[in-house]
Formats: sequence, C-alpha cells, structure tokens
Amino acid sequence: MHVALLGGTGDIGEGLALRLARDTDHAVTVGSRDVQKATAAAESYEETLTAHGVETAVAGETNPEAARAADVVVACVPAYHLTDTVESVADELEGAVLVSPAVGMKRDDAGLRYNPPGVGSVTQLAAGAAPEGTPVAGAFHNLAAGRLADLDATLGWDVPIVASEAAARDAVTTLVEEIEGLRPLDAGGLANAAEVEAVTPLLINLAKQNEGLHDLGVQFQ
Amino acid sequence: MHVALLGGTGDIGEGLALRLARDTDHAVTVGSRDVQKATAAAESYEETLTAHGVETAVAGETNPEAARAADVVVACVPAYHLTDTVESVADELEGAVLVSPAVGMKRDDAGLRYNPPGVGSVTQLAAGAAPEGTPVAGAFHNLAAGRLADLDATLGWDVPIVASEAAARDAVTTLVEEIEGLRPLDAGGLANAAEVEAVTPLLINLAKQNEGLHDLGVQFQ
Repeated sequence: MHVALLGGTGDIGEGLALRLARDTDHAVTVGSRDVQKATAAAESYEETLTAHGVETAVAGETNPEAARAADVVVACVPAYHLTDTVESVADELEGAVLVSPAVGMKRDDAGLRYNPPGVGSVTQLAAGAAPEGTPVAGAFHNLAAGRLADLDATLGWDVPIVASEAAARDAVTTLVEEIEGLRPLDAGGLANAAEVEAVTPLLINLAKQNEGLHDLGVQFQ
Repeated sequence: MHVALLGGTGDIGEGLALRLARDTDHAVTVGSRDVQKATAAAESYEETLTAHGVETAVAGETNPEAARAADVVVACVPAYHLTDTVESVADELEGAVLVSPAVGMKRDDAGLRYNPPGVGSVTQLAAGAAPEGTPVAGAFHNLAAGRLADLDATLGWDVPIVASEAAARDAVTTLVEEIEGLRPLDAGGLANAAEVEAVTPLLINLAKQNEGLHDLGVQFQ
C-alpha cells in the first residue's frame, strides 16, 4: 500500500513514518501544506532510519500530492486543523481510506479531559469533512508520540480501530499488524470512536500523576 | 480497615468481597437493602473462600448498618441507583471514605457508549449525593466483574483512582495494592473521573468485537 501522512512533519506523523518505513514494505509519503517542510522532514526521517540500519526512501509532498497516490491517508494534524486538512485533499481521496488519529482535549486545573466536537468524536468530524462514501477509520489515538518516534523503544501497545466499513478496517488492521509492538483491535463502528479517543487524556493524566510512568499507551487484557 | 460493600450482592461486589477477603486483612461487610440477601451473599462468599482454602468471615448487613462501622464504603450499585444508595447511608458516612465504581452506559446499534450524568461523571454524582466534606474516590470502574469474582483467575490490571483529597486516595490505594494482580494509579482529582469511567464501555466493545478477548481490564504502559 501507499500511505500518505498529512501533516506528517508533526510528532505523531514522525513516529508513524519511521515505524511504517522500518517495519513494513508500504510506501510512505510525508505531506505538509509547505512542500519544503515535507521534503525536509522526509529527509530527516531517512537519516534517522539510516542511523538504525534501514535504507528506505520516504517521500515529501504537499498534502494533496501526498493524498493523490495514496491507498491510506492518515490525517496527522491537531483536531482543530482536521476539517481544513481533510477538505484540502478532498479531490484526491477517491479510492483511498481516510484515517483519523486526532483527539480533542482541553486542560483545566485538574488535568486534561476529553473535549469531543458536537458530532460526538473527532473521528466522526473527519468522516463528515470527507467526500460522501469515503471509507473512514479512527486509529492510532492512544500512541505516545515520543515513544513511537524513538526507534529504540519497544511499544507493546494495543490500537483500537473504529471504521465505517470493512475496507477501512482491513487496511488499517494490516498496517498496525505489521508495525512491531502494536496489536490491532476491532472497536466497532465510528459511533464508538469517542470512548477510544477519551483514553488519550487519561494516559496523559496518569503519566503526569504517577512517578516513573511516561509516554504511556494501553493494553487491554 | 473496615470495608463496606453497599449492594455487595451484585457482581462487582462479589468480586471485591472475595478478593479483599482472600488477599487482605481488612474486615469486609456486604450490604444490601435487604439484610437477608446480604447475609445469604456473605455466607455464599465464605463458602467460595473456604473452597479456595481461605477461612475468613464476611459479614452481611443492611446498607446503613454496613456503612456505620466502615472506614471505606464502596457503592457497588448501578449508576441509576447510586444517588438513592448514597443518600440512604448519608447519616453513617462520618469518618468514612466513599468510593464509587459505577459507570453510566447506554447501548445503541453500534455498541455501548459512555453516558455521563449532567455533573460530568458518575463519581461526581456520588460525591454530590454524599454529605458535604465526605472524602470521595472513584475506583474499580474498569474491572471485569466475572474475572474479578473468579478466584482462580489472574488479573494483571491497573486501577486508576480519582479522589477529592489525599485521605480518600490513600485508603483506596492501600486496598488496591493489597489485592493480588491490581496496581493502583493516581488519575488526579474527581474532575478527571469521566475519562476513567469511559474506558469501561470501550472494554465491553472490544470484548464483543474481538474473538478470544473477554472479561477485559486495562494496563497502562
């Protein structure tokens, strides 16, 4: 498969690019609004991979160019940029699966909490911004970006996947299965996305409150 | 400590009673609206414990009687009975920590989802029903009752604890630490309860959707 990481210059994009490039044979393209930023990030990821003994190409393109050739398009942008970003590639999504890893959160005195949009979840916001009929999945919400991007770190994390249809679920399941240390889990339809997304502020609160815990993910057992 | 399990005849009450009685030296009293139901459950738990080589007494009382002598009062009732149950023991809560393990959920075609009350979380609902100044904690939300009540089963689960104050957090942390296979984690103040409670419908959805997974708990790592 060909995977496009929109906004792939950010921290979750970096981790997914490095892990996909190292652990799978899928082609990875980093997208950005600014093609030079995308190219620079892709080069930097290639250098990191080389330093880990992996010689593989990572491409850099504008977001629409990255989406055009992709079978799977992951919107690696903050929740408040998600609608804009998906709309900017809407003409290129035919035949592709759109994946949303973003989570809406807000901070108050006690900690971080889940802050879903009116449609119920950020994944459903992504689905609403995509052309009708686009297969949509929500995944990768609960991965600590710092550990994901550290190729020396082991993961041991579960990835609950919500999806609008089997094609979306199957494509994302394949990608997750091939990344070392991740286990894909079926979390049902898009209507179940909020409970998956809500785990992320909990992970951050737990890491903040408990000495010795940081960069947390989750395992269901 | 003396632990009262209000509504301790139900499934989460059974699991907590058995594990506390087997793994700790704390006194356990099963409460119920109906004292005969409480006594019968306590006897049945004692038989289960005996069958597992543990000779220990479990008491059965009405909910208010159970609460009267308790240092820790766990409201093991469904969310929609929580306010009534806490109000029924309000006169007996002085000097005790109140613990809420309940989660509000609703089911639709796609699965179960988190259904918090207007105050934000079920734990906060419990706090609102208790006399002012009662130390309140939320804990035990994410434990699969069936596995908890099976003394032959190993757990390996984390228990995120939210609390109104240190006294509540410390008491519950001690109980959790002493139960084999549970790890207490500080999840912050009561305002962080929703994200802990929301994990429960996710656990049930994952168990339903994924072959081979059932009676799930969670581990943060």
